[in-house]
Amino acid sequence: MNPEFLKKAEQAKPILTVRTHTKKGGQVLAETSRAVFDFGTHLVGYPKIDFSAVGAHYDAPALIRVRFCETAQELDEDTFLYHGWISKGWLQEEIVRLDELPCAYTFRRRFAVRYVQVEVIATSPKYRLRIDRVGIRSVTSAPEPIAVCGKDETERAIDRVALKTLSECMQYEFEDGPKRDMRLWLGDLRLQALANYQTYRHNDLVKRCLYLFAATADAEGHISQCVFTRPDVAPDDASMFDYSLLFIPTLYDYFTETGDRQTVDDLLPLAEKQIEIAKERFTDDVIEDCDRLGWCFLDWSLALNKQAGAQAVYLYAQKTLIRLLKECGKDASAYESDAARKSAKAVEAFYDRERGLFVSGKERQISYAANVWYVLAEVFGKDDNAALLDRLQACDEAIRPVTPYMMHHYVQALLNSGEAEKARSVIRDYWGGMIERGADTFWELFNPDDPDESPYGGKAVHSFCHAWSCTPSYFFRKYFVEEKP
Amino acid sequence: MNPEFLKKAEQAKPILTVRTHTKKGGQVLAETSRAVFDFGTHLVGYPKIDFSAVGAHYDAPALIRVRFCETAQELDEDTFLYHGWISKGWLQEEIVRLDELPCAYTFRRRFAVRYVQVEVIATSPKYRLRIDRVGIRSVTSAPEPIAVCGKDETERAIDRVALKTLSECMQYEFEDGPKRDMRLWLGDLRLQALANYQTYRHNDLVKRCLYLFAATADAEGHISQCVFTRPDVAPDDASMFDYSLLFIPTLYDYFTETGDRQTVDDLLPLAEKQIEIAKERFTDDVIEDCDRLGWCFLDWSLALNKQAGAQAVYLYAQKTLIRLLKECGKDASAYESDAARKSAKAVEAFYDRERGLFVSGKERQISYAANVWYVLAEVFGKDDNAALLDRLQACDEAIRPVTPYMMHHYVQALLNSGEAEKARSVIRDYWGGMIERGADTFWELFNPDDPDESPYGGKAVHSFCHAWSCTPSYFFRKYFVEEKP
Repeated sequence: MNPEFLKKAEQAKPILTVRTHTKKGGQVLAETSRAVFDFGTHLVGYPKIDFSAVGAHYDAPALIRVRFCETAQELDEDTFLYHGWISKGWLQEEIVRLDELPCAYTFRRRFAVRYVQVEVIATSPKYRLRIDRVGIRSVTSAPEPIAVCGKDETERAIDRVALKTLSECMQYEFEDGPKRDMRLWLGDLRLQALANYQTYRHNDLVKRCLYLFAATADAEGHISQCVFTRPDVAPDDASMFDYSLLFIPTLYDYFTETGDRQTVDDLLPLAEKQIEIAKERFTDDVIEDCDRLGWCFLDWSLALNKQAGAQAVYLYAQKTLIRLLKECGKDASAYESDAARKSAKAVEAFYDRERGLFVSGKERQISYAANVWYVLAEVFGKDDNAALLDRLQACDEAIRPVTPYMMHHYVQALLNSGEAEKARSVIRDYWGGMIERGADTFWELFNPDDPDESPYGGKAVHSFCHAWSCTPSYFFRKYFVEEKP
Repeated sequence: MNPEFLKKAEQAKPILTVRTHTKKGGQVLAETSRAVFDFGTHLVGYPKIDFSAVGAHYDAPALIRVRFCETAQELDEDTFLYHGWISKGWLQEEIVRLDELPCAYTFRRRFAVRYVQVEVIATSPKYRLRIDRVGIRSVTSAPEPIAVCGKDETERAIDRVALKTLSECMQYEFEDGPKRDMRLWLGDLRLQALANYQTYRHNDLVKRCLYLFAATADAEGHISQCVFTRPDVAPDDASMFDYSLLFIPTLYDYFTETGDRQTVDDLLPLAEKQIEIAKERFTDDVIEDCDRLGWCFLDWSLALNKQAGAQAVYLYAQKTLIRLLKECGKDASAYESDAARKSAKAVEAFYDRERGLFVSGKERQISYAANVWYVLAEVFGKDDNAALLDRLQACDEAIRPVTPYMMHHYVQALLNSGEAEKARSVIRDYWGGMIERGADTFWELFNPDDPDESPYGGKAVHSFCHAWSCTPSYFFRKYFVEEKP
């Protein structure tokens, strides 16, 4: 690890703002009964519950189960039956024995929560348990709430929820989600940073995260897909082809926003390194198919062939690097010739002239993921891209986005192609769809065609506050200026 | 509550001695596997476990279940299946999520433990959990360990375990058992105090407990069966006929041991009150049958008829009160005439001349409990009592003791009747039987005829360190002086 970078990351570590939220209780619970406390909004923090005994003096410990849920639908799930592939460790529940009553039980762990459910498993015949008060000390590193924007209530609701989603994920780092994984992921960071520049402008937090990734790059310069910070800073042992490359636009966006040349001077060599590392996965300027490429994320879909999309992300990152080098007065010519060759080769290898769409892999799969990234990479001009996106929309077999992360890139592609109204309507439909289903914060996954889809085998481990879904606040402010507050 | 008595109880509150015990780990556990740590002896204290992750960086909380067991046989029980009538709250286990690794997890609760079992419910595919160290901070208010006595290894083993049993139960009060109920019970206190006088001589702890009972007597003077001290001092809402009366011998023994006249002056009126209250349950000097008497403990047996035994306990307590009054230079004549009347009436009502044994209730039930208390109450003379105990032993239908508490009184009755060798052999057989079954501390219940008896529906809630079983240390030192250390 690079100790200088680590030091700069630590220097930019934020102070958390703590707020106290309280729900008054009074419910008296006999064995096997339960009570639910609704805080009315999503909170990230440390709960404390005041309990007392009703009846004779308590003569045995009270055994309780407390569940912390982001959404009401989680309450309906029986977590004992959860056997999905994500660790049960993520289930937000605690089984607790209370030896003394009355008592104020402070939970050690941080939870993402709107609903707190207390269930009494056992007391004794002599007493029942009363819940006197449920409190949560919420934490965030986001500054004070900012004004909501949007041209109507639909947009204002979307913006309000997006702002909330982002601030909930702003802790000591930009976390992907406060319920799970509570960690700094690179692709997620990039979208959070974009939204942050238009809203909270906590730019030091972006700086900290950039340095955390840089500090934990390995000896060859591989940037990890995510960084652990607890108990110590450490890289994940895996990297994703696209996420590593997104270090470049994340750095570029940061420089554009802040003009912080020192950080760019520190991190530019590592940004260039990502291109060099990725370049090794090409043969005759065509990227390996995804069976050999390793993990390239693009979207949360196992059906997706990533080959064509991976090359597009490479081109997008490389073009951003060229821009960054030029703005710093550096030579970018080697990258320019590589980009030109690989762009031409991408069209040759992946563009189906008959259908007018990029296709991926041996099965010539059509997806939003691949095509959107070619639009973002500006392989074609603006008008051609707009036409391509029209054809994409008309293509029934195209694999559609399932995450707000991929949906963000689709909206960005529409905007870059001059399709502002279409982009706006996608935001209103897609993010509005979550609002219609009661979202207080936006979700990790939302498939409008199958809103109950649960790839994890149970909603209780879903992240219902996931930062990569916060970008409507970015789009509204950057592209629909007339409604700025 | 009596504030002056409460103050005296608080002034006598002991300081606990804390010792640290550590087992080195190193076990690496995959999901659903477990490791057991054997501390080699019974401990009462606060555990701490050091954990770390093996493999890639932990990427999900570890979900574990930790069980604390007094005996190895508890480990074999599946506590998920426990549905006995004692609260599940007493099961000594914790389900814990570890968010950060490595970590030192300190349990908030106190446990009675020799074996610590850690079971991994879930980690993630990326890592396994390593147990680096298991520590216990043990607590007791007993002074330094004292030398073991006994004429051979059998007796020394019994004495060692009895001493350990007592010291484990000496906390801020004399607790009945450190696993369950962790509380001050009056009948239990009396036996603990007797053993304490011969061993640790922590007489202020007895004083504290006497004042706690006195402070919490109700307006009419009823002394409760047990006193709660956490979070505040409070009486149980129930009293037992025999336990309340045992306040008198407990006070008498304390006075005999310490000569502390101030305490006797404070508490004697309350001791007399117990006789006055109990006296109301007699008609024509015969006590009510147990369907009307309320709870009289005698022994842990639902089959036991308590009527005859209850009158014997009354007589025993009253005779002790008479002795106490006389030693304090006070008039006891009213008690003496009452005692004479009720003794004679007891023989008339309960003594079956044909069988030469006391019988109880309409069903004329024969039990050790009833007969032993008549011996202790000295209704007959020493030789007659010895003969009575012989007949009792020969009576197959007599309900035998099932607790060390009742067995103590049987041994005491034998000793009072000049049957020292029989007493000694009962100690060696009964308490030795627990040693043969691996006891580190003596148990709440032990029925030699059915050693696996589990009146609670599961051994995991049994108290395997129960102070009322500690009196071999008292008997050895008081009656078998030749082997004093």
